[in-house]
Amino acid sequence: MRILGIDPGLAIVGWAVLESERGSLRPIAFGAIRTPAHTDIEARLATIKCDLEAIIDKYKPEEMAIEELFFNTNITTGIAVAEARGVILCTAFSKGVKISEYTPLQVKQAVVGYGKAEKHQVISMVTTILRLKSPPKPDDTADAVAIAICHSQCRASAIGKYYNKR
Amino acid sequence: MRILGIDPGLAIVGWAVLESERGSLRPIAFGAIRTPAHTDIEARLATIKCDLEAIIDKYKPEEMAIEELFFNTNITTGIAVAEARGVILCTAFSKGVKISEYTPLQVKQAVVGYGKAEKHQVISMVTTILRLKSPPKPDDTADAVAIAICHSQCRASAIGKYYNKR
Repeated sequence: MRILGIDPGLAIVGWAVLESERGSLRPIAFGAIRTPAHTDIEARLATIKCDLEAIIDKYKPEEMAIEELFFNTNITTGIAVAEARGVILCTAFSKGVKISEYTPLQVKQAVVGYGKAEKHQVISMVTTILRLKSPPKPDDTADAVAIAICHSQCRASAIGKYYNKR
Repeated sequence: MRILGIDPGLAIVGWAVLESERGSLRPIAFGAIRTPAHTDIEARLATIKCDLEAIIDKYKPEEMAIEELFFNTNITTGIAVAEARGVILCTAFSKGVKISEYTPLQVKQAVVGYGKAEKHQVISMVTTILRLKSPPKPDDTADAVAIAICHSQCRASAIGKYYNKR
């Protein structure tokens, strides 16, 4: 089962493709889609769409896991992230990729075992779980790996509340 | 000059195509894209994308005007609206339609002449300006007409602050 993890954003979309087989996890590829600042938002959204299509075409994930949005910080940034997230959901659906959503708390719980874990703990655990020589960069990519790991665990344990909850 | 006005939403996207010629405005078509509740958001977003592409292909607008988002009411609804708005912006851009954004205050100012006008005043003015027999329904469609009227006026008067401000 090939899983695509996505950390949504307008400037940076973190992504990670993992292969989940019989309880073991193997990184296939990870990275970040970047869009230039000082460019019209519609052009940046179109870049996200095109790059995501290319990633899906290349790595052929069967399922996608993406973080749910909460507006507890910057609402203006939040609008842009939500707009990017809409494009990501629509693109994955059009490509036939099944989508699941997780809250940041669920992701931290799955990866670190503690829902209020710090960001550096998540990055450290992600690096350990995938036996990487160094942490994925930027942090958005590490977050995308964490979301993919969370999905693989929730699939494996078939926790209905977490997995494919819609 | 053919203008597409859009009132973004997840359940209902109001749309209106107007022809603006030498200061006169003529309605070409208007309506609403509707997506079913109790359906995955990604499927609803894909419906919006497909229907908007069909509208653009049929009526061939050169420019699109869309309302800016503000989160002063329901934040959870606001996230879904922003996700839909992202898909709308990306779709119009991909179709080569030039995009301008207006705040609700700018739209009311342009249509009613008063930035804090009530919704019924906007609907009444829209009906009068286009010489319609009855107000466009639903309200989302009337709002889309108002946004298109706002854009045609701002283009005509070339008010840089309003028109194509990015």
